[in-house]
Amino acid sequence: MAEACASPTPAPSVGGGSLLIAWQLKDKHVLIVGGGEVASQRVESVLTADALITILSPAKGLHARTKQFIDTYPTRITYYDRRFSGAAEIHKMDMVLTALDDVNRSREICEMCRKAKVPVNAADIPDLCDFYFGAQIRDGPLQIMISTNGNGPRMAALMKKRLQDALSGKEGEAIERVGVLRAQLKDRASGVGGALGRKRMKWMSEVCNTWEVDELTQLDDTIITKLLDEGWEKNAVPTLDQLTGRQTRNITRPFQSHAFPQWLPVIASFALGAACTTLALLSRKR
Amino acid sequence: MAEACASPTPAPSVGGGSLLIAWQLKDKHVLIVGGGEVASQRVESVLTADALITILSPAKGLHARTKQFIDTYPTRITYYDRRFSGAAEIHKMDMVLTALDDVNRSREICEMCRKAKVPVNAADIPDLCDFYFGAQIRDGPLQIMISTNGNGPRMAALMKKRLQDALSGKEGEAIERVGVLRAQLKDRASGVGGALGRKRMKWMSEVCNTWEVDELTQLDDTIITKLLDEGWEKNAVPTLDQLTGRQTRNITRPFQSHAFPQWLPVIASFALGAACTTLALLSRKR
Repeated sequence: MAEACASPTPAPSVGGGSLLIAWQLKDKHVLIVGGGEVASQRVESVLTADALITILSPAKGLHARTKQFIDTYPTRITYYDRRFSGAAEIHKMDMVLTALDDVNRSREICEMCRKAKVPVNAADIPDLCDFYFGAQIRDGPLQIMISTNGNGPRMAALMKKRLQDALSGKEGEAIERVGVLRAQLKDRASGVGGALGRKRMKWMSEVCNTWEVDELTQLDDTIITKLLDEGWEKNAVPTLDQLTGRQTRNITRPFQSHAFPQWLPVIASFALGAACTTLALLSRKR
Repeated sequence: MAEACASPTPAPSVGGGSLLIAWQLKDKHVLIVGGGEVASQRVESVLTADALITILSPAKGLHARTKQFIDTYPTRITYYDRRFSGAAEIHKMDMVLTALDDVNRSREICEMCRKAKVPVNAADIPDLCDFYFGAQIRDGPLQIMISTNGNGPRMAALMKKRLQDALSGKEGEAIERVGVLRAQLKDRASGVGGALGRKRMKWMSEVCNTWEVDELTQLDDTIITKLLDEGWEKNAVPTLDQLTGRQTRNITRPFQSHAFPQWLPVIASFALGAACTTLALLSRKR
């Protein structure tokens, strides 16, 4: 489903950006002209999107990773050991990516694509591109793209690292399990739109808001059935603890626990200091 | 500049995703069919990318935000108080976005776009879309997109919140200042590619790696000149402290500071406890 843009008010800084989108390439034809390191990154990106790939590159120009992709995905990748020959190559294509050292050749290919209305990206020639790539994070169904709009790939890589550190690595699994819950809810309470659709959406939101990411990963078939029986059917959103009787929360959120406040060691030390001194002085008295 | 895909090894999970890209729309023509709430989100997204927008929607269907955009950006947005009339409307367009309640009409428009090879997104009809939208974070030149590949917009919104919490809100400014530094370095040491290009890239990376985000925001004209004089020219990467003589680090990173270790209050309390008890016992003795 198309995901809604979540910002409720006009952005403070309008303009100067790009339109960040998730392009759909399932079983679409993508031509990659070139076989070097950049080409290998392009192959990986479009493999992610389940494209059917054609690579044009003399064998001597193939990077080890490009070769590895060609060998690993023979049903997805068709490789030709030759250069780009002319406009006829792009006619059946849904997207063209060039990764060539030859800037003039790249420009020619881009012009052909523009005429044929085929979306095109030419590595390192931004003014010719319909779209740019960015730093990416992938965790199963979760994909994150970071673009600095041309202000330096290094900063994009730094932002990527910072965002990766903020994720636990379980988000992809959680999103997958929520997808399964959502599908089973739709089976149970089917129908498109209307009051039921809104109720379903609200209940799903409530679950996602109440349960932690770690807890969502535990949504196996048994717990999903329990959650639908005890929750959806009774118009409630029980916690994982309530469903299983286990004390999961304190295990999954140790840093938010209030069982051991930060000032406890300070008070304990004061008391210990006092006690030790009392004992020392009393023992000297005797 | 096209940003490189930063992953050095093949992704563990290939397939099942989208191609996340930053589409370029500067002064390109985008048709938005519909004027409701979803349409207003589309208007915002393409305004971000500096598109020239045409909106088709009967006035009674206009959402307050759509209206506000039309009033605020008269040179960017052309508004027609009528419905979509036929294929002729899309011929000059570079992209079409439909946000209609009428699914059949949306389907017809999508088919026209497909024939004319114009990229199209139909809100809530995923199978018709060339691309999807996702949750977005924008901070000046920094744009982040989060896609859950159809596994629920709620999880995308949750991920957005989590990532936003991980950012200080100064990243956009830092990226902007790094862009200025980069441009001034290119002026000073001009030329495309080659050994000089590599040296420039390496030095810029080193600066981005050494300086904190907060420090990068302080790159004004004076400090940039100092950094280029004392750093680039001398083949070094001085810290902000070294350039300014100020003790900035401890101010900008209070939580990483080692000047006030966590066990200090504990020891101090022990001593205080001991001292108080001693005083109390001694005063009783007298």
